[in-house]
Amino acid sequence: MIVNCVAYQDGRKLADIRVEEISEYVKRPECFVWVAIKDPTNEELETMRREFGLHPLAVEDASHGHQRPKVEEYGDSLFTVMHVVELHGDEADVAEVSVFTGVNYVLSVRKGMEHGFVAVRERAEREPELLRHGSGFVLYALMDNVVDRYFPVVDALEVELEKLEERIFSGSSPKANIEELYNLKHKLMVLRHAVEPLIEATHRLYGGRVPQVCQGTQEYFRDVHDHLVRVSQALDGLRDMVGTAMSVNLSMITLAENEVTKRLASYAALVAIPTMIAGIYGMNFKYMPELDIPWMYPAVLAIMAAIDYYLYARFRRAGWL
Amino acid sequence: MIVNCVAYQDGRKLADIRVEEISEYVKRPECFVWVAIKDPTNEELETMRREFGLHPLAVEDASHGHQRPKVEEYGDSLFTVMHVVELHGDEADVAEVSVFTGVNYVLSVRKGMEHGFVAVRERAEREPELLRHGSGFVLYALMDNVVDRYFPVVDALEVELEKLEERIFSGSSPKANIEELYNLKHKLMVLRHAVEPLIEATHRLYGGRVPQVCQGTQEYFRDVHDHLVRVSQALDGLRDMVGTAMSVNLSMITLAENEVTKRLASYAALVAIPTMIAGIYGMNFKYMPELDIPWMYPAVLAIMAAIDYYLYARFRRAGWL
Amino acid sequence: MIVNCVAYQDGRKLADIRVEEISEYVKRPECFVWVAIKDPTNEELETMRREFGLHPLAVEDASHGHQRPKVEEYGDSLFTVMHVVELHGDEADVAEVSVFTGVNYVLSVRKGMEHGFVAVRERAEREPELLRHGSGFVLYALMDNVVDRYFPVVDALEVELEKLEERIFSGSSPKANIEELYNLKHKLMVLRHAVEPLIEATHRLYGGRVPQVCQGTQEYFRDVHDHLVRVSQALDGLRDMVGTAMSVNLSMITLAENEVTKRLASYAALVAIPTMIAGIYGMNFKYMPELDIPWMYPAVLAIMAAIDYYLYARFRRAGWL
Amino acid sequence: MIVNCVAYQDGRKLADIRVEEISEYVKRPECFVWVAIKDPTNEELETMRREFGLHPLAVEDASHGHQRPKVEEYGDSLFTVMHVVELHGDEADVAEVSVFTGVNYVLSVRKGMEHGFVAVRERAEREPELLRHGSGFVLYALMDNVVDRYFPVVDALEVELEKLEERIFSGSSPKANIEELYNLKHKLMVLRHAVEPLIEATHRLYGGRVPQVCQGTQEYFRDVHDHLVRVSQALDGLRDMVGTAMSVNLSMITLAENEVTKRLASYAALVAIPTMIAGIYGMNFKYMPELDIPWMYPAVLAIMAAIDYYLYARFRRAGWL
Amino acid sequence: MIVNCVAYQDGRKLADIRVEEISEYVKRPECFVWVAIKDPTNEELETMRREFGLHPLAVEDASHGHQRPKVEEYGDSLFTVMHVVELHGDEADVAEVSVFTGVNYVLSVRKGMEHGFVAVRERAEREPELLRHGSGFVLYALMDNVVDRYFPVVDALEVELEKLEERIFSGSSPKANIEELYNLKHKLMVLRHAVEPLIEATHRLYGGRVPQVCQGTQEYFRDVHDHLVRVSQALDGLRDMVGTAMSVNLSMITLAENEVTKRLASYAALVAIPTMIAGIYGMNFKYMPELDIPWMYPAVLAIMAAIDYYLYARFRRAGWL
Repeated sequence: MIVNCVAYQDGRKLADIRVEEISEYVKRPECFVWVAIKDPTNEELETMRREFGLHPLAVEDASHGHQRPKVEEYGDSLFTVMHVVELHGDEADVAEVSVFTGVNYVLSVRKGMEHGFVAVRERAEREPELLRHGSGFVLYALMDNVVDRYFPVVDALEVELEKLEERIFSGSSPKANIEELYNLKHKLMVLRHAVEPLIEATHRLYGGRVPQVCQGTQEYFRDVHDHLVRVSQALDGLRDMVGTAMSVNLSMITLAENEVTKRLASYAALVAIPTMIAGIYGMNFKYMPELDIPWMYPAVLAIMAAIDYYLYARFRRAGWL
Repeated sequence: MIVNCVAYQDGRKLADIRVEEISEYVKRPECFVWVAIKDPTNEELETMRREFGLHPLAVEDASHGHQRPKVEEYGDSLFTVMHVVELHGDEADVAEVSVFTGVNYVLSVRKGMEHGFVAVRERAEREPELLRHGSGFVLYALMDNVVDRYFPVVDALEVELEKLEERIFSGSSPKANIEELYNLKHKLMVLRHAVEPLIEATHRLYGGRVPQVCQGTQEYFRDVHDHLVRVSQALDGLRDMVGTAMSVNLSMITLAENEVTKRLASYAALVAIPTMIAGIYGMNFKYMPELDIPWMYPAVLAIMAAIDYYLYARFRRAGWL
Repeated sequence: MIVNCVAYQDGRKLADIRVEEISEYVKRPECFVWVAIKDPTNEELETMRREFGLHPLAVEDASHGHQRPKVEEYGDSLFTVMHVVELHGDEADVAEVSVFTGVNYVLSVRKGMEHGFVAVRERAEREPELLRHGSGFVLYALMDNVVDRYFPVVDALEVELEKLEERIFSGSSPKANIEELYNLKHKLMVLRHAVEPLIEATHRLYGGRVPQVCQGTQEYFRDVHDHLVRVSQALDGLRDMVGTAMSVNLSMITLAENEVTKRLASYAALVAIPTMIAGIYGMNFKYMPELDIPWMYPAVLAIMAAIDYYLYARFRRAGWL
Repeated sequence: MIVNCVAYQDGRKLADIRVEEISEYVKRPECFVWVAIKDPTNEELETMRREFGLHPLAVEDASHGHQRPKVEEYGDSLFTVMHVVELHGDEADVAEVSVFTGVNYVLSVRKGMEHGFVAVRERAEREPELLRHGSGFVLYALMDNVVDRYFPVVDALEVELEKLEERIFSGSSPKANIEELYNLKHKLMVLRHAVEPLIEATHRLYGGRVPQVCQGTQEYFRDVHDHLVRVSQALDGLRDMVGTAMSVNLSMITLAENEVTKRLASYAALVAIPTMIAGIYGMNFKYMPELDIPWMYPAVLAIMAAIDYYLYARFRRAGWL
Repeated sequence: MIVNCVAYQDGRKLADIRVEEISEYVKRPECFVWVAIKDPTNEELETMRREFGLHPLAVEDASHGHQRPKVEEYGDSLFTVMHVVELHGDEADVAEVSVFTGVNYVLSVRKGMEHGFVAVRERAEREPELLRHGSGFVLYALMDNVVDRYFPVVDALEVELEKLEERIFSGSSPKANIEELYNLKHKLMVLRHAVEPLIEATHRLYGGRVPQVCQGTQEYFRDVHDHLVRVSQALDGLRDMVGTAMSVNLSMITLAENEVTKRLASYAALVAIPTMIAGIYGMNFKYMPELDIPWMYPAVLAIMAAIDYYLYARFRRAGWL
């Protein structure tokens, strides 16, 4: 579905144009066309290919999806793939954005994304002095928007880890903790696969030989790169702490086992000793003088209680109970 | 066994030719020869060496097999080795494809592979405008085919991991889980050894100084490279999760031990306390007033039952039973 | 809040100047302006942007904060972000310093930091022969001060680890140890995220193509770089030892479990054997000749005591008790 | 001991020559001398140094031994150190080969090696068209021979791991498994230390600026490099799997502990319940009506047996027994 | 304290000179001055700074100490910091050597080192043909001496690991093993921090753009580099094996726990079964025909013994006892 199809000149919106007019506007050196498509059909992509003169391999990638994030040069034009990551419960879903950028055009194709780039277009139109930079600036604005969406995801994962840490150290629900740590790790991996390839790709947009469409906006792409590195660093930290939290959880489980063993041992002792004493006075020897003493029965009961009381206090002090 | 031996001109099939004619056709600048061999004998390889003028070291590699994936330049020609990985039950089997590519010829040699490259040839013949690119395009088409075969393998391994995850978190069959995780890791390793060396090798076919036969088709090789990186990334992710799943499994085993210990302790308590009480009333003291009370025996039995009921309820609530 | 606003000429303080005069002094080739701001309002930053002609992206970074440490070139000027790490109990807090350095000016912006850079300014003013190097030297002096603050933090963490090691090997409070090791790891991560990016960034200030403002002071920046590498190395070592300490702690917990199991087994034996003997003499067989021997009861008690004494001694020797 | 001392011209053996003649033959541009020494004395090395004009540092390295594998250039000549690894039971023994290669000579010095390089010389003399390449080809032939000796070692280690895997998953002899995995890891390390440094070293013999003696034979050295990378890859895989096998073994041990605990609990239950019942009927209450019923004693025995049978069946079904 | 202060010309000792004469001798192009200081006072360093014209930052580093190993260029002169590692019981102590090398001078400053460099000077003076290379050769000789001191340390740590391995596999003193492995790891880290930075630093003394003072002696510095890489490789291997030994130790501890549990279970069975039988015959049923059979009591005792004997034999065979 074609969301927008607008021609710009000198940083200002010229007109909403029809799809068939695109190839005409693209030829004018002083203006550029910015088209946004969403969940496109093959026909729409084929039309775009013709109107903009896109490379078949790039169109195939945008059509098939499941690409890794990348920035590829096809002659003077750039083909960019980015992943938007959205958290839904225990899942980290990935939506794909492909951007074709030529000197005179920008074509963004998004698939399976909830929120589009209307805000990007609105903001760009409010700042004509920046939009004047042309298609390279639009590419920057789109990338910046995608990258900005990573931060809340990272924050959400950090909050999740903090909650888990609390539960781990309080020793509660170790089984659920393992499962959630595993899920968290999985979500981190999805996010990393979205971010890492872009770092290298954006680096080529401002350092060394810069593609023509990005010239004059290198500092903006460096800013995007910098944000990506920050996300990546946060992910690395999280990843490291998740791994540590996993082994902490195992230690806590083993510790809990120690506790159980100790309590088991303590209670067993409290029961075993009176049983032994009772056993002794249950023997059938003819000559057991204690048996004939009237106060001996309550005395033995008292001794049993006293021993247990003593053991209980000792176990308590030793932290076994 | 020689599967095919065809001369092409201007992107179209010229003729099926005899092996002895190869050296003749290879000399014609305007056409190229595409030969496919399967499980070759040494004589066949020797014939090929003579007809195409191949380098002895490369022929030796193709003959001995057990090479690692690579792309090597011998003068103007390329020698490519690729691994096809096929899953058969718990095993990941590797078949080897060697491709000799010169300006005017392509020779593919496959060993121990179930499915050949007939589909590649058919598709190439249906697209003469692409086949016109010459032997470099054929090399691309073969590589693309090999790389496309990695994706279903990765998918199968991902499904396998998901099944294992479910079983791990449900706590069932920990022993089998360990063994299957180990097997999964082994299969991942086999696949990685097929993919990783190709990444570096294909990179040299489109970036920097490009070999002559690949010139004009760099964008296609970049696409192959990109797919390989995607496979590699997926493998890295899988590998990471398999490692994590292993330590999760260990945690689950340790947790299960805790459960067993707790249940053991609980049941032991339920039996030990009545035993102790019975022991006490089994003592042989002369003066034990309770022994003479008629309702005392059922009362003691009731007390035993009551204590056990209380303990049972408490253990239940504590999650020990 | 503007802390200082001073013009320098030839290595000596010229005058405290008003904010509005900045742009005027900056134009004079022979002098430079050094301004220090703390927790700035947006208006203050906007004023600075105008007076110094700063790049909007850099000002935005300084204003928003939460940047990663970096050194960025904007034309002839440098934008530097550094993190100051302060330990408060179990937390490692991060404060941010941004420094804008042009040929004729230095502007430092600090946020949420306890101690400012008054000492840096005082020392610089006492050494006019160094201050004569200009704004590049001031940037060095600020970086040097920030980096010097990392050393006591590293030392504190090393002391913390040593205390933990002692507790781990004495086997005391394994639960607290785990938690503190986890916290320690977290603090190390915060510090690493402050230090690592600066290493690469400072390297570019003395090696290869050196930015204009740093020329003539490369050896100073190499010194800063060297200190950062030293901090980084110490952090790597700490990190490694913390990981090892964690697994040592797990081993100690498992060992402790062994101890408990052994003691449990030993005490159980001491009780079970007399119980068994008592049970035997509690049987109701008619013909049990021992039962009629008068000294048999004390003899059996003595035998019980003797067996227990023997077992106790043996367990002691085996280290089970 | 001098094993061989032969002069070659135009790819064919000229003559066995005496040591004192070496310096004379080395001067002739059209021929080269190939000397093989084994476990040399210092005098022999000194003689060689004089005759060939070797660099003192290189001779010192060859004399002292315990060098790491390397290829060093001394002016126009190359000094190569390689390790041959031989498995003897649980040990991986390392023998050292030093090769001095000049434009007109090759001197191989081997220490502590069982099998020498006679086969290399024989094969080279059978292929004069290759030997014509000169001393560089001889160096290749020696390296190729050394590298070919790594493959059976890797294979032996792979077989060893497979045997261990079987034993680990069958749960037998966990203690021996740990020790053998540790030994296996040690042997892998020895092999890696032999292989890794050579990879980098051989790379310099065919890529970039190639030493003069290797010119014209680059493709051969690339082949050696390729084989080394293959060995290295196999070692990495092995190393990874050994690490995994170790943690699998730990999991199996923990699992075995669970089994033991469960069996222990089960058998304890089978004994404890009859004991409790017997205890109850051993109480001395006056009014216990069951005691007077004649069939009660066998009935109680039957109840005990029935309960145990039921428990036994249940434990069996639950897999505890 | 100034240990030596000697001028050399043409590879031979010219004279012991006074400190004040240094600046004079340094000016003569044909000779060089070699000064050795030990635990210097600030005044001594200040004197040296003036006499040799050293860079203040380098002098500051030498004075403060606690530098990381490095080689820094200050104009034409080199500033080198090296760590000497000495083992004292469980500690690895680090002493620091700073060497200032100019075209005409070498100044070595050592701190807290037991053994100085007298041997280096003596050997250099015995080999005038080498000393003729000038100050660069002296720097090499000092570095070589420092690096040679690493080998016995590595050997000592290897011996320590071997002893530990033996103890680990024999299962003795697991607690002490953990602590010693931890200490070993710590010592390895100290050594690595001494060696690693030097590897990179020495590489710059023979490869690429070589500092002037090292020209003509590159092959010697390559030798030092090579030795450092060898030390580093040995350390990596040790580090790897220490990590593995730690996890082996944990496995052995867990195994030991299994053994204890099995023995505990076995002995418990040997006691529990007679207790149960005794309990049965302790019941007070009126009609228990066995009780009246005279030989029944010894028969029951015999049965108890027989069962225990059978169980004991079975446990033995199963390896539980």
